[in-house]
Amino acid sequence: MIERFARRIPEPTVVRLPLYQRALLELSASGTTTVSSAELADAAGVNAAKVRKDLSHLGTYGTPGTGYDVNYLLSQVRHELGLDREWQVVIVGMGNLGHALAHSQRFSTQNFRTVALFDVDAARVGEQVDGLAIRHLSELSSIEDTSQVIGVIACPASAAQDVCNRLVEVGVGAILNFSPAVLTAAPPVLLRRVDFAVELQALAFYVVHPEAVAGPEEGPHSLL
Amino acid sequence: MIERFARRIPEPTVVRLPLYQRALLELSASGTTTVSSAELADAAGVNAAKVRKDLSHLGTYGTPGTGYDVNYLLSQVRHELGLDREWQVVIVGMGNLGHALAHSQRFSTQNFRTVALFDVDAARVGEQVDGLAIRHLSELSSIEDTSQVIGVIACPASAAQDVCNRLVEVGVGAILNFSPAVLTAAPPVLLRRVDFAVELQALAFYVVHPEAVAGPEEGPHSLL
Repeated sequence: MIERFARRIPEPTVVRLPLYQRALLELSASGTTTVSSAELADAAGVNAAKVRKDLSHLGTYGTPGTGYDVNYLLSQVRHELGLDREWQVVIVGMGNLGHALAHSQRFSTQNFRTVALFDVDAARVGEQVDGLAIRHLSELSSIEDTSQVIGVIACPASAAQDVCNRLVEVGVGAILNFSPAVLTAAPPVLLRRVDFAVELQALAFYVVHPEAVAGPEEGPHSLL
Repeated sequence: MIERFARRIPEPTVVRLPLYQRALLELSASGTTTVSSAELADAAGVNAAKVRKDLSHLGTYGTPGTGYDVNYLLSQVRHELGLDREWQVVIVGMGNLGHALAHSQRFSTQNFRTVALFDVDAARVGEQVDGLAIRHLSELSSIEDTSQVIGVIACPASAAQDVCNRLVEVGVGAILNFSPAVLTAAPPVLLRRVDFAVELQALAFYVVHPEAVAGPEEGPHSLL
């Protein structure tokens, strides 16, 4: 157990696990029972050497000549990702982006369920979005159990740190920040940022520096 | 020159360069002329050792006891990011997400300018969004010079590969994919994906595996 918990999985591997999970779900649904690293790589849009290395971080090596057992690997990846439990998503900031996220198939899928929407704009409070009424931010404390809640910040940058503080105050320990603001929260709160400008700039970087793109065998998806 | 172009900058460094760029812009605007790695780390939300390592990839080491020259470092980072030129952003798919991106301050900022919006829905074509009329996707070929264009895919997954193919056909070589679909495009086309579900799942991973979070000195932003 100690070894298991002392294990450190690199961040690039962590963000590829969801890709394997999705590919394995599709393979499992189609009745496929075993998959080679090359096939899994193809389905996930990652190169095969990376698949083998990533899965070795989970202690999984597959069987030479046969590959991986699809359902066993799927359950293992889902366990690692915490997808063997239910997560509740709370979105704060219901402008265009908040609406886009609330409607997103990808955001309310599998084990993530959007359970509450908040805004401070009186004109928006009460509006129904996919069966959920937008509530005033002052009602944030009405969330009863925050242990499985992921807070999503989709408000303007100027309000983002205040929203972050309020989420932390009511006990939310995992926050996904879509605002351009750099936020701070004391550990053990987990903050992760999705910054569209960073994505554009990183892409521009690779246009300017094609030599920095990973080797040709990895294909364009190595940029993920 | 050979050395310069043979240099390989790691992906995690690439996605932190925009953070340094933004922090340096603010420092420069406030009249600050030198900055220590600790100060830059604080402003960018990254730990100081990472700042020094990242900047060393640019061949920049700062002056011991003084730190980095803000304006010189800023111009260097902007040059590396290709921000010493103008980029044009074309968004395909003008649902909630397309609107959110078109309105985003972060998307039309500095050297990125949203120049065209496309959709296939006749009800949306012609709608004005921040001074740009949404055009039908069939007019994609009217883009004259695609050398500095970044194509943004914000349409449903089912249409995403077709949109990607059309962008490539008209000569767009850099594509940011916001749809959940795994897309393919032959090199040298650069494809980068922003998948909201991956971001949620990666955050959930760290809730389940707090031991996998980088050392305490790095703070929660090491999750970026």
